[in-house]
Amino acid sequence: MQTFTLEQVAQHTTTGSCWVIIQNKVYNVTDFLFDHPGGPNVILRYGGKDATAAYIPIHPSDALDKNLAPERHLGTLDDESINRLKESVNNKVQTKDELRVEEALKNKPPLQRVVNVEDMEEVAKKILSYRAVAYYSSAGDDSITHVENGRAFGRFFFHPRVMKPVSQCDTSTTILGYKSTIPVYISGAALARLGHPLGEANLTRGAYKTGIIQMVSTNSSLSYAEIAAARVSPDQPLFFQLYKHVNDATAEKRVRDIEGLGYKAIFLTVDALVPGNRELDIRVPHYLEDLENQGLPTQRKSDEDEGETDRLGTAGGLVIHNDADMTWEKTIPWMRSITKLPIVIKGIQCVQDAVLACEAGCEGIVLSNHGGRQLEYSLPPIELLYRIRQQRPDVFEKTEVYIDGGIRRGTDVVKALCLGARAVGLGRAFLYAQSAYGEAGVVHVARILEREIRFGMQSLGARSISELVPQMVERVDWQPVTRAKL
Amino acid sequence: MQTFTLEQVAQHTTTGSCWVIIQNKVYNVTDFLFDHPGGPNVILRYGGKDATAAYIPIHPSDALDKNLAPERHLGTLDDESINRLKESVNNKVQTKDELRVEEALKNKPPLQRVVNVEDMEEVAKKILSYRAVAYYSSAGDDSITHVENGRAFGRFFFHPRVMKPVSQCDTSTTILGYKSTIPVYISGAALARLGHPLGEANLTRGAYKTGIIQMVSTNSSLSYAEIAAARVSPDQPLFFQLYKHVNDATAEKRVRDIEGLGYKAIFLTVDALVPGNRELDIRVPHYLEDLENQGLPTQRKSDEDEGETDRLGTAGGLVIHNDADMTWEKTIPWMRSITKLPIVIKGIQCVQDAVLACEAGCEGIVLSNHGGRQLEYSLPPIELLYRIRQQRPDVFEKTEVYIDGGIRRGTDVVKALCLGARAVGLGRAFLYAQSAYGEAGVVHVARILEREIRFGMQSLGARSISELVPQMVERVDWQPVTRAKL
Amino acid sequence: MQTFTLEQVAQHTTTGSCWVIIQNKVYNVTDFLFDHPGGPNVILRYGGKDATAAYIPIHPSDALDKNLAPERHLGTLDDESINRLKESVNNKVQTKDELRVEEALKNKPPLQRVVNVEDMEEVAKKILSYRAVAYYSSAGDDSITHVENGRAFGRFFFHPRVMKPVSQCDTSTTILGYKSTIPVYISGAALARLGHPLGEANLTRGAYKTGIIQMVSTNSSLSYAEIAAARVSPDQPLFFQLYKHVNDATAEKRVRDIEGLGYKAIFLTVDALVPGNRELDIRVPHYLEDLENQGLPTQRKSDEDEGETDRLGTAGGLVIHNDADMTWEKTIPWMRSITKLPIVIKGIQCVQDAVLACEAGCEGIVLSNHGGRQLEYSLPPIELLYRIRQQRPDVFEKTEVYIDGGIRRGTDVVKALCLGARAVGLGRAFLYAQSAYGEAGVVHVARILEREIRFGMQSLGARSISELVPQMVERVDWQPVTRAKL
Amino acid sequence: MQTFTLEQVAQHTTTGSCWVIIQNKVYNVTDFLFDHPGGPNVILRYGGKDATAAYIPIHPSDALDKNLAPERHLGTLDDESINRLKESVNNKVQTKDELRVEEALKNKPPLQRVVNVEDMEEVAKKILSYRAVAYYSSAGDDSITHVENGRAFGRFFFHPRVMKPVSQCDTSTTILGYKSTIPVYISGAALARLGHPLGEANLTRGAYKTGIIQMVSTNSSLSYAEIAAARVSPDQPLFFQLYKHVNDATAEKRVRDIEGLGYKAIFLTVDALVPGNRELDIRVPHYLEDLENQGLPTQRKSDEDEGETDRLGTAGGLVIHNDADMTWEKTIPWMRSITKLPIVIKGIQCVQDAVLACEAGCEGIVLSNHGGRQLEYSLPPIELLYRIRQQRPDVFEKTEVYIDGGIRRGTDVVKALCLGARAVGLGRAFLYAQSAYGEAGVVHVARILEREIRFGMQSLGARSISELVPQMVERVDWQPVTRAKL
Repeated sequence: MQTFTLEQVAQHTTTGSCWVIIQNKVYNVTDFLFDHPGGPNVILRYGGKDATAAYIPIHPSDALDKNLAPERHLGTLDDESINRLKESVNNKVQTKDELRVEEALKNKPPLQRVVNVEDMEEVAKKILSYRAVAYYSSAGDDSITHVENGRAFGRFFFHPRVMKPVSQCDTSTTILGYKSTIPVYISGAALARLGHPLGEANLTRGAYKTGIIQMVSTNSSLSYAEIAAARVSPDQPLFFQLYKHVNDATAEKRVRDIEGLGYKAIFLTVDALVPGNRELDIRVPHYLEDLENQGLPTQRKSDEDEGETDRLGTAGGLVIHNDADMTWEKTIPWMRSITKLPIVIKGIQCVQDAVLACEAGCEGIVLSNHGGRQLEYSLPPIELLYRIRQQRPDVFEKTEVYIDGGIRRGTDVVKALCLGARAVGLGRAFLYAQSAYGEAGVVHVARILEREIRFGMQSLGARSISELVPQMVERVDWQPVTRAKL
Repeated sequence: MQTFTLEQVAQHTTTGSCWVIIQNKVYNVTDFLFDHPGGPNVILRYGGKDATAAYIPIHPSDALDKNLAPERHLGTLDDESINRLKESVNNKVQTKDELRVEEALKNKPPLQRVVNVEDMEEVAKKILSYRAVAYYSSAGDDSITHVENGRAFGRFFFHPRVMKPVSQCDTSTTILGYKSTIPVYISGAALARLGHPLGEANLTRGAYKTGIIQMVSTNSSLSYAEIAAARVSPDQPLFFQLYKHVNDATAEKRVRDIEGLGYKAIFLTVDALVPGNRELDIRVPHYLEDLENQGLPTQRKSDEDEGETDRLGTAGGLVIHNDADMTWEKTIPWMRSITKLPIVIKGIQCVQDAVLACEAGCEGIVLSNHGGRQLEYSLPPIELLYRIRQQRPDVFEKTEVYIDGGIRRGTDVVKALCLGARAVGLGRAFLYAQSAYGEAGVVHVARILEREIRFGMQSLGARSISELVPQMVERVDWQPVTRAKL
Repeated sequence: MQTFTLEQVAQHTTTGSCWVIIQNKVYNVTDFLFDHPGGPNVILRYGGKDATAAYIPIHPSDALDKNLAPERHLGTLDDESINRLKESVNNKVQTKDELRVEEALKNKPPLQRVVNVEDMEEVAKKILSYRAVAYYSSAGDDSITHVENGRAFGRFFFHPRVMKPVSQCDTSTTILGYKSTIPVYISGAALARLGHPLGEANLTRGAYKTGIIQMVSTNSSLSYAEIAAARVSPDQPLFFQLYKHVNDATAEKRVRDIEGLGYKAIFLTVDALVPGNRELDIRVPHYLEDLENQGLPTQRKSDEDEGETDRLGTAGGLVIHNDADMTWEKTIPWMRSITKLPIVIKGIQCVQDAVLACEAGCEGIVLSNHGGRQLEYSLPPIELLYRIRQQRPDVFEKTEVYIDGGIRRGTDVVKALCLGARAVGLGRAFLYAQSAYGEAGVVHVARILEREIRFGMQSLGARSISELVPQMVERVDWQPVTRAKL
Repeated sequence: MQTFTLEQVAQHTTTGSCWVIIQNKVYNVTDFLFDHPGGPNVILRYGGKDATAAYIPIHPSDALDKNLAPERHLGTLDDESINRLKESVNNKVQTKDELRVEEALKNKPPLQRVVNVEDMEEVAKKILSYRAVAYYSSAGDDSITHVENGRAFGRFFFHPRVMKPVSQCDTSTTILGYKSTIPVYISGAALARLGHPLGEANLTRGAYKTGIIQMVSTNSSLSYAEIAAARVSPDQPLFFQLYKHVNDATAEKRVRDIEGLGYKAIFLTVDALVPGNRELDIRVPHYLEDLENQGLPTQRKSDEDEGETDRLGTAGGLVIHNDADMTWEKTIPWMRSITKLPIVIKGIQCVQDAVLACEAGCEGIVLSNHGGRQLEYSLPPIELLYRIRQQRPDVFEKTEVYIDGGIRRGTDVVKALCLGARAVGLGRAFLYAQSAYGEAGVVHVARILEREIRFGMQSLGARSISELVPQMVERVDWQPVTRAKL
């Protein structure tokens, strides 16, 4: 294999010829610049330079093979260059954010002190890089919908039943026929390696240990094969969250690949076809620049500064090749023609579309507004679930209904189940957990939820999931407080 | 009686052989370790050592006799050991929390400055140990329900009547036929000695002085006999809050015992069969550890730190032997078979169960969500009372209805009575009062309530309890402010 | 007239013989001690001493003549005693609160900077003594109702009409047949001299200047005759707010007196028959004591400290002789038998009593919860007005309806008028105004309201009061913000 | 032309003879004093002096020609006076507010950091003079309505539709037949030069660049002709916001003038006939005086200080000649008689008047409460729109309906369009944008809105404006949070 010096690579910095170094290998990315989902500028910033630190946490290991023709894999750095590069990485002055993270990691509390899911979020937000926090926690526009997803649960109160035998209480259920110890699954969420070097594999192993099911994101930071390989047992079910590629052939290949890898269901995501406006994420470079500048605001240098804001953020580009022209008539039959896997529609946001999904024969639907990350003022999923229960209870007979968004407590889960949901998904909670404590964090969160769900069921007088019924929940006309201080 | 040295006791520190010293007596608790409601670890922490300071405030004096066979009462320390132990207690460095309490006690305001029930709570929270504050004030999950219990009263406004003769106004009523000067009783609440050395006896004597009735908790920190003996007059009625033991024989003995001691009614508690998730209480050891460490967070020491949180807290274990399989069909007839006392079901949380309790022939029901300490989002009792009034007013004809939870003011009491309640219970308010000022505090709170209730009745145009009617209360559609600052 | 030395007076300090000095005169108040509305302790505190500073601002000048037999007016101090007393008053160290007031008065803003009614309240609260602020602003229990009175207006929005000729707009109306330039009157509020040496006379003269009507409180700090004499013209109408004395003869004398003095109507107050629980007022001595003690809380000195709180405050005693046994059947006919003046019932708090007042033939009713100073959770008057409009609009045909409580803006006034009120009363606003700027303050507030009312009417398309109709107001289902910051 | 010395001008300072200097020219304004919309005092403050700095930013260039007879244009200063004046301006000590602005301008962030409309407002509020901020942001009374206009949008949630082809999405529409790239226009807002020297021309050019339409205010700070001349192309449409002058002849001349200048429509404003009570604006002199005085409050100097507050503020006078007696019967036919331009009624605030405007044949209506600047508690426009949709949907068939007030986000625009609005107006947002960044700011805001609107439409499944329908919006019964922090 050919070798290069740092100086040679440094010649290629433009759209005319752009090379980058990743893990001491040299790549010619000139042709790919304008196909890059994050746009060419993100790459050009590293043109002629080492891009390893920025590249690794947000790309699966097979990304270069998939996207770059073999002849663009030019070779490696020579040994001296490798040493110089290593030295320069070692000598790099730490940023203020890196220093903060280093300090936070020293003070990370023992896992036993994480008493509930919000605790986990708090720990993770302290030890994650700012970029990771912003990407994980950001939501659409003013994050109102993200917050409302959670607040909405507050408007549902219980009618607990007493004098029922509940010493034996079974929290298990099935999801698409697969057994789960609790009515909870890990929802597909992107870029787990941004938070922890083992990334999605932490989720896979934690799911196995606690008997729950993981849904893998199209935008996972490990390859689909790596995640499948991380399973503890070949029987461990995995679901796949699919963004359909605009190109049918590319999309078909992806579906056949994941079916081949043993994934058990497709969660076709229909609520994130165009990039959301995640302002916390968009502002990351402004924040980090100011942080380095001692908090002094960056001044406008000249009139040439004026112009468009870069709005893609860490992951806005991830949806850039999504098919924004799917229809019930065209897309579902096409899916059926290429796979035998059950199809669940993720991102149902109104009663009418829940009905249409049933009519289209989908095996399940996820009531979801993408965790508040897409359209601001999309109804909170628990409110939509309630409307389906009121207006079209037949939906629950015809398909499995899941919800995600805003779930933090066992009571949230139990409310959804009383109203007719078969299971609920949590995304961020598990991402935060694996970021803070790896696999042990994932197990810890699952166990917290298991305990809270069991307690909720017992307190309602229910011995099994099937005894959770709509009469146990009342939607009240006031908004309770959140997390009261005593 | 045999004597031991400290050194001898110190040999017995394991599950194989565990001895503890309590008030200079030596006990072999090996056999009891795994029957301890709070789990073995709490005891093992004191294995081979003096456990007096931790043991005394939360166990009634007959606990050792009841739970430990006579042969496990091994003997006493020898005199020299007693002296050494005394010295070591005297030399013990005070914790930061003890120092805080000492300072707070110096600044405790005179009782006349306690103008209302919330004032009392504020004083008590300052002078109590952190462990006691956390145990008394903790509630389920995020304490939302605890707060909502109180906020709910705010949505009920009055329709006061004028031009009615009210100079003579009688606030008295009867509860299960027993006379009470106001429609208020002291609700059973556990571990009063955590707050004051005289514990539940303060409540007994304060109740007598003000002509109200005390309900004694199964988990009282004085024995049931000691409390009965604290009565000022043999006619003074006491009620008993019963947690039915999972073992029928044990349960029957408890019922027969308290009937024998002269208790007048059984309040069978059905809403706390499994331990609630009281996070403030669970976090007590974390808080105290950090406090001693100058507020530095405790770091995770190794991977072995990972694992389960100890979630029982100060009193989670108290419900560990409760019968979680009671039913209307089985339990009520069984109760009737062993006692002639009236049976009140405490912990009714929905309209349907209020009706079932009537059908089961219960003499009374308490609408209660255990002060928000059990299932988060259980309806506030005043809201449930309102629903019974709207949907099943016949319940009020068939049984006496009480409520507890969130009551702080005479207006709260009067609202409940207008809607049909016969009386209301206050638990924490009286616990705080006896903690801060002993018996005088209990009397003070009762008098504050008496004054506020009388004023409320007069302002509504009511001369007697029977003139409080549903038409005097309106549920409004907005949420008022709480405790306005002017 | 006999003269006394300070030493002679100083002998009489007990319930057996109690003398006080007021403005250098000596009074024997022994017989009166237990008739004093504020109780004997308040007087005994000054037994044998000079009570001038405490007495003057809260008693009308005829109080001693009315309450003390001539032979109890013992005489005067001798000249030397007068000089010594004067000197000791001059040498008295100022309290911290007096020093604060002195400083605040120096910084009092010019009247032009008082842009609205809340500004006036802010200025007054800065320059008043703490005792006066607490008395004026205190309300029942937690002051929730006081705040809700104002917040309630926020739920009423306008349906303004456009394309109506409004350049000419007449804000005037009549109240009980008496002309008023705006549909606003000064509501009876006690103890104006607590805020300003000229007291109620400021209100009388300010009312005249701006063409509005003053209602005089039974508990005014000038005598009814002094206030009548303060009128600028003999035609200036005054109304009288009557607390009926429990003794019919005393009550009759009061009514005949005020009729003789030329007062034009009786506002019989029925919502404050027993003293309200005004905690801010009750805590005044605690606050002032702590203030002097450098903010250190007062410690409990001994067990003898325990006991009852003094709950009368500055004015709780003022209602102590009120008749708490009035009825529609008895009281109204009796009133008619002793006076020809129109009778308005002040303190109607529910629809039913509004109807009863009509049936009793009253010339008017005031929907009022006493400014939130009596029963907490009495409905806000604007809400009650709305319910009468919905349920019994015939009331508006049968009697004049006024409201008071929570009014701060011209829009509040206009809302009330749209819903059927004939006029609204403001009490505190005018008290604050006269406290801060005397008569000029009263005029200023009336002019602010006049401007705001006119603007509101014009914006609704109304040229006269009669064009304000219910269709112009909508009760909305959300609670708006209060006083937004931009 | 005659020349004058500073000393000569300085003689004329009274209502008897008042001269002022503006841009080195000398004017005799004696006759005009009492016709000045802002009242005589504002001018007299500059009598005999240079008024340039105060005059320029708030008067269009033709104001002196329009309002002052030629013989009152007396001449110019002589050269020496000009130099002395220049020097004195240069030597003038900067006020604290000017220093603050100077500093803020140095730290103004680059335009790319302005991510949304609220960011723009924040930047502008930092770099504007206090007077300008207060004028732009001030609203009626307590600014409640201004805030509620925005909060009201929060109560409308979406029912997004999925599986619709949205890759092609057209945000364009027509307004009164004129093409607009987005359903947004620049609403007429006064005094743009207060914020930026190029004033309204920034809006004109920014509107052209982004394909949207500008409505010009009667109170623009450039002359109508200058704005018309600022158009980039003669085809660029401009609308005119008309305050009808009380004098029909004057009003007619204004209409004919603007028609002659090529304006395309008249937005007759009917909701601001009398000056609103904009307290933030009224308090500007108090604030600035205190700021200069080191924040010490201004003390009241003497009794002569008492009296009326100057309430006109920066622009209260601007409406002083408005016709407050317009009617549907008289005014619309008269308008038709003098112009062929379409007539839109701006300031409809209830359903009934929307219907009357249709019956009067108006080409459009603007649901508006003048941005909360006039009557407090006028319904938020989006709420009114909702009521028209519920009660009188025929209105949308008969006329074009626009709304303004509270719009900050693309989702706000989309909600209004779903409910039937044809377009929405933004005033302050564009004023702030041109203040902070001139024309580039205007372009930036339009592009932000365009992106947000497109994203909203795509997320709802709408390819074109006509696919936005009422079923896509639900009014919910709770109030969401605003701008959540994560």
